[in-house]
Amino acid sequence: MKTIIALFKKVFTTAAPFFLLFLLITSCGKEEAPSVKYGLVIHGGAGTIEKDKMPPEIEAQYEEKLNEALLAGYKILSDGGSSLDAVEKVINILEDSPLFNAGKGAVFAHNGINELDASIMDGNTHNAGAVARLTHIKNPISLARMVMEKSEHVFLIGDGAEQFAVQNGVELVDQNYFYTDSRWNALQRALKKEMESKSQTVLYPALSDEKYGTVGAVALDKNGNLAAGTSTGGMTNKKYGRAGDVPVIGAGTYANNNTCAVSCTGWGEYFIRLGVAKDISDLVDYKGMTLKDAADKVIYEKVEQLGGDGGLIAIDKNGNFAMPFNTAGMFRGYIFEDGRPIVKMYKD
Amino acid sequence: MKTIIALFKKVFTTAAPFFLLFLLITSCGKEEAPSVKYGLVIHGGAGTIEKDKMPPEIEAQYEEKLNEALLAGYKILSDGGSSLDAVEKVINILEDSPLFNAGKGAVFAHNGINELDASIMDGNTHNAGAVARLTHIKNPISLARMVMEKSEHVFLIGDGAEQFAVQNGVELVDQNYFYTDSRWNALQRALKKEMESKSQTVLYPALSDEKYGTVGAVALDKNGNLAAGTSTGGMTNKKYGRAGDVPVIGAGTYANNNTCAVSCTGWGEYFIRLGVAKDISDLVDYKGMTLKDAADKVIYEKVEQLGGDGGLIAIDKNGNFAMPFNTAGMFRGYIFEDGRPIVKMYKD
Repeated sequence: MKTIIALFKKVFTTAAPFFLLFLLITSCGKEEAPSVKYGLVIHGGAGTIEKDKMPPEIEAQYEEKLNEALLAGYKILSDGGSSLDAVEKVINILEDSPLFNAGKGAVFAHNGINELDASIMDGNTHNAGAVARLTHIKNPISLARMVMEKSEHVFLIGDGAEQFAVQNGVELVDQNYFYTDSRWNALQRALKKEMESKSQTVLYPALSDEKYGTVGAVALDKNGNLAAGTSTGGMTNKKYGRAGDVPVIGAGTYANNNTCAVSCTGWGEYFIRLGVAKDISDLVDYKGMTLKDAADKVIYEKVEQLGGDGGLIAIDKNGNFAMPFNTAGMFRGYIFEDGRPIVKMYKD
Repeated sequence: MKTIIALFKKVFTTAAPFFLLFLLITSCGKEEAPSVKYGLVIHGGAGTIEKDKMPPEIEAQYEEKLNEALLAGYKILSDGGSSLDAVEKVINILEDSPLFNAGKGAVFAHNGINELDASIMDGNTHNAGAVARLTHIKNPISLARMVMEKSEHVFLIGDGAEQFAVQNGVELVDQNYFYTDSRWNALQRALKKEMESKSQTVLYPALSDEKYGTVGAVALDKNGNLAAGTSTGGMTNKKYGRAGDVPVIGAGTYANNNTCAVSCTGWGEYFIRLGVAKDISDLVDYKGMTLKDAADKVIYEKVEQLGGDGGLIAIDKNGNFAMPFNTAGMFRGYIFEDGRPIVKMYKD
């Protein structure tokens, strides 16, 4: 018996370093999540979201709503539903909450009106739908999906898009639906700041956080189909019918079953100029980069070097995911097969 | 003397095959234009442009206008002007002509209104400007440039964009300015066809050529700066505030000094879904493809496999250029340092 134990000890002592080396090597390739069958990543906007400035009761509200959205999406995916259904449902929940700059909580444009943009893309068919400058649509992401599935077009704008909505049985809501005190006050602050700085010559107006509060979701379903969607009220005090990256397929939203699904949030102008969402897909596709490396490169190098900021969420066909941002924080979360929702707001 | 001639003959006979082989080998690598200092490529739309259906007097008008545009752009480039100036000037000329579906010759939307889209991109700064659903702007490409250079935004839409135009001294034109008999009749034909096919369930309406008549230009200037621009009236009989790929940066227009400048024309929905213009840039950038191979791959493989059609023009930082299309024809032309404008319409 003793000899056996001694032998075992010897073998163990000799083998241990090799075993540890083996563990180290195999774990190196697993920095990204291991291959999973389905999963969901969401965001509720990037900006100056800092722990020490966040009242605990507000933090709790965000956490609760993001968890609710993750679990609703998870239910669809675990039941075998499509990534498109999960993305739409999750975004509906965030649109219906006044906490986020989309749907109910949309910011006010300069003219005191809420103008909403959204887009969705199906990585399986490469089909897409985008809507811009909506003023009476409760859930822009659902209209974007309707454009994708029920029209011969991809991109519908303004009153025309709303006419399409009505013809397809969507009920218009009054502008009052979008009114929230916090967003109205944000506009008043922005207008005041603008008046005060009128004497200075500035190319870009003083930045206000309100430009970052987009919501979005990306998902991989059991059939291996990827989908991405994004919805926003845009930038507080935006003028001249401005649209950001959200209704621009390839900039704010992109999905391709062969690569990944991406939804962005940030200073839209920079995301359009760089075609951020498609750029990540192309870095993965054409350069063979991992999703994480591609996403990091675009946010921390390209967007930053051009002078922009923001973040994004992305998931690839193997269930690897990334959530980089170069702002102080980003409302974000993910849920995979194990059904455990993880919500984050600040830098890790 | 005779011996010398005989010797020469012998040498020639022996060497000739090798010489021909040498010529063949060296010319193989030169399918794309050799490195040049500046150049310009333009298009006036792709579609069923066929020699046997083209009246000679109409052909002559197109040839004349495309030549005029090329020479105007050439003058700017050869004088040391910027690629942006050349692109804008060339597109202004095509916009002002009723021959093309942009500016003056824009097609009518379903509502009997002309709605114009345009975008421009500076490959040097990565800055861009895009406008959509304009109804009173004579030269949309110039407004797109103004958005790029004089606003903090990239993408302005509809009445908001026109308000921005007015504040920057642009004169609005009456809708009547855009009226042309041929485009009005095209709308009437499309409406009639639509009425006739109302009984059938179709996802896509019967195609009419009028959706292809975009104009665009890409240029490389003496400073090595690339620029791309595109302008269109969209699709005859378009509904619901539809926009195609033209105002979507990365789809209809893209420019990057490190790669190439691209302007597209075709069935916009497919060009958005594939992010055609940026795709070509990324294939060159990330996959190291030549411009010609990248452009061919996107038009003849990707667009075609998805079921779309159209064409594009592209020029890279070395002056290589490509003009692929999978329609019957495409109005197109190019001019390089030698100042000789080349105009084509049909398949080579």
